[in-house]
Amino acid sequence: MKRSYIICGVTGEDSKKSLQEEALRLHERWRGKLSIESKVPVANVYDLSIAYTPGVAEPCRHIARDPSLVDVYTGRWNTVAIVTDGSAVLGLGNIGARAALPVMEGKSALFKAFGAVDAFPVCIDTQDPGEIVRTVTLLEPSFGGINLEDIAAPACFEVESRLIEDCDIPVFHDDQHGTAVVVLAAALSACRVTGRSLDELKIVINGAGAAGIAIARMFYHVGAREIILCDTSGIVGAHRDDLTPVKREVAGWTNPAGRRGDLAEAMRGTNMFVGVSVKDAVSREMVASMDEGAVVFAMANPDPEIMPADALAAGAAVVATGRSDFPNQVNNVLGFPGIFRGALDVRARVINREMKVAAARALTDLVGGNVSPDYIIPRPFDPAVPAAVSAAVADAAVSSGVAREPRGPEEVAARTRAMLGLAG
Amino acid sequence: MKRSYIICGVTGEDSKKSLQEEALRLHERWRGKLSIESKVPVANVYDLSIAYTPGVAEPCRHIARDPSLVDVYTGRWNTVAIVTDGSAVLGLGNIGARAALPVMEGKSALFKAFGAVDAFPVCIDTQDPGEIVRTVTLLEPSFGGINLEDIAAPACFEVESRLIEDCDIPVFHDDQHGTAVVVLAAALSACRVTGRSLDELKIVINGAGAAGIAIARMFYHVGAREIILCDTSGIVGAHRDDLTPVKREVAGWTNPAGRRGDLAEAMRGTNMFVGVSVKDAVSREMVASMDEGAVVFAMANPDPEIMPADALAAGAAVVATGRSDFPNQVNNVLGFPGIFRGALDVRARVINREMKVAAARALTDLVGGNVSPDYIIPRPFDPAVPAAVSAAVADAAVSSGVAREPRGPEEVAARTRAMLGLAG
Repeated sequence: MKRSYIICGVTGEDSKKSLQEEALRLHERWRGKLSIESKVPVANVYDLSIAYTPGVAEPCRHIARDPSLVDVYTGRWNTVAIVTDGSAVLGLGNIGARAALPVMEGKSALFKAFGAVDAFPVCIDTQDPGEIVRTVTLLEPSFGGINLEDIAAPACFEVESRLIEDCDIPVFHDDQHGTAVVVLAAALSACRVTGRSLDELKIVINGAGAAGIAIARMFYHVGAREIILCDTSGIVGAHRDDLTPVKREVAGWTNPAGRRGDLAEAMRGTNMFVGVSVKDAVSREMVASMDEGAVVFAMANPDPEIMPADALAAGAAVVATGRSDFPNQVNNVLGFPGIFRGALDVRARVINREMKVAAARALTDLVGGNVSPDYIIPRPFDPAVPAAVSAAVADAAVSSGVAREPRGPEEVAARTRAMLGLAG
Repeated sequence: MKRSYIICGVTGEDSKKSLQEEALRLHERWRGKLSIESKVPVANVYDLSIAYTPGVAEPCRHIARDPSLVDVYTGRWNTVAIVTDGSAVLGLGNIGARAALPVMEGKSALFKAFGAVDAFPVCIDTQDPGEIVRTVTLLEPSFGGINLEDIAAPACFEVESRLIEDCDIPVFHDDQHGTAVVVLAAALSACRVTGRSLDELKIVINGAGAAGIAIARMFYHVGAREIILCDTSGIVGAHRDDLTPVKREVAGWTNPAGRRGDLAEAMRGTNMFVGVSVKDAVSREMVASMDEGAVVFAMANPDPEIMPADALAAGAAVVATGRSDFPNQVNNVLGFPGIFRGALDVRARVINREMKVAAARALTDLVGGNVSPDYIIPRPFDPAVPAAVSAAVADAAVSSGVAREPRGPEEVAARTRAMLGLAG
């Protein structure tokens, strides 16, 4: 009873409360969502002599001679660290590394279910960017990839760029790039619905944290030139003297008309609103002030910047949220599992822009001819998603010259399906 | 064919070679011995809303208010870091953190198979003790215990003691204490065979690395007073001016007669030889020079200090090795899984001496009345071992006041058997 009620949509305070109570009860019963299992037999003396001493010495010797063989004789190539300092967890803010662990365990479960990736939560007990970078760099012998998670802006930008420099494995901040990939996919489909092209759109992004800035950069990279970024003080621009270094940099290539003012001012006459901010940040009037055929992505969690019914009533042509109980759920789970699956399968050195754009286009292509105002992005449990994304990402890694173990997209897709136990 | 050949004993160069080749081939096929699995369902929107957002926010909030609840709502309480810097791996020496990973994966498999512990390999890319300590300390939010592995002496002593000071979870260097526990168990049984008591024994330990020093300390702790430690330069004593600080400390309470000389000199007239050194370090003549009813633990791997047949021919009453193809295998797998199982089950703050001695006595008690020169220690696959050790360790943790979640030994034994899927 309770369950079907919740599936129908977590809209009232009562159902929210019952979901929270159920989640707490189950977390206490589970006492951990992950299990580290042996894939190999250790049932008798012979098994041990192969998987452990004395046999294990042989792969050790080979890796000692050529450290790159660690990805041949161990599971490092498929093992990802989910790294957090607990400074920006979900909508909960800076709750610390311990309190972030339930989320990271859940993330690991998603990595396995949707990407066949072995992902381990690395919750770090410092919020000093230099210490985070040093710690993660020292762990590189155990990991084939780094997924940064729930690290607050602006520290996240420094941590990410320094890790990319210091590590020879993919480093990916999901709150930035995972979100940007899925938003780009949704935006490309929305453009098909409204008959516009992305590079002619006037776009307002509300929320200048990790996600907002990454989305702005992604849109700019694929050709959009009229982007306005807003934070809690309004439009980000050269006129502001309160900007962080990162926002100052973004101000250099956004807001080309030098507009000033608040979010309502920014939205007037634009074609697309992207919210990664807070509940109720947008009114009906603000949507009504947009250009005809407006696209509204209201992705604040759990409560969107404006409810879909209100946005549609105010004239929006396409609406998306982060919620599973409305159409067009913009959910990172569409991105990171397949992105890492593809990157790991060709042992990419990095996850570069080409690979991210390829992931977004793969998601848009999956929607394809079925695109409609209520269907601009695949559903999170669409079984076609992981292989489509991994194949596109691997292909882009090979084309852009960052793959250490090149494979064709068909092979990567087939491997992904096999690892996930899906029919070919 | 090959398999049964190897089970019979890895004695010739041919069989050693074939085992190594098979281990290499299988490691390449496995490409990793571990899998990180979700224990909870993530098959639909409802599952995700409990294990991930939005439901997961509720346990996060509780942990943010009271960080100790991380051990109630996550798997941290049962998760152990297997930490190495790759400086002293098996008999291979300083092969580095990457080359150590196959061993750490195998160790994790043993932790699960014999202790139902989720253990993750943390291979650290530095051999600076301060950096190792800082890295591990920063990872404490993810782990309920730390197993140090294959870190060379003397750095291992500094790393261990500083981590014990800095961390509020058990820190255990298996090469030291795991070995010392199993050796003590074997020694207690050997005393029953020879009719002596441990505190009257004259003991020579050859090898003054992590294991040798820990064994010396353990024997001293349980009452032995005539202990001589030897390193490659002979007897460790106050007369030596080449000692590390740790060996100097040990020299203060060993070698009470102030003897000088080499290993042969040290062994004359003693009751027990404990070798954690190298192949062929001991001759028949050296064993023959020991007192009547001599006990010889020749544990160099893979080839012992003296072969059992030679030691017995020279008059030894009891012989043990590290090898699975002879009686009396002194194998750490008898210790660390049950020791951590017991410590984790009562959420012990540390693994103290009382717990280590309790583990040793539990192993000796399992041998009990069946003790004989050929059976002084349980076999590694004896299914009674994990629960017996965990119960004794948990009980000692409770008695010594370090258990955060006290449970009786019967409950711990039953939980251990249940977690391992063994009949009660």
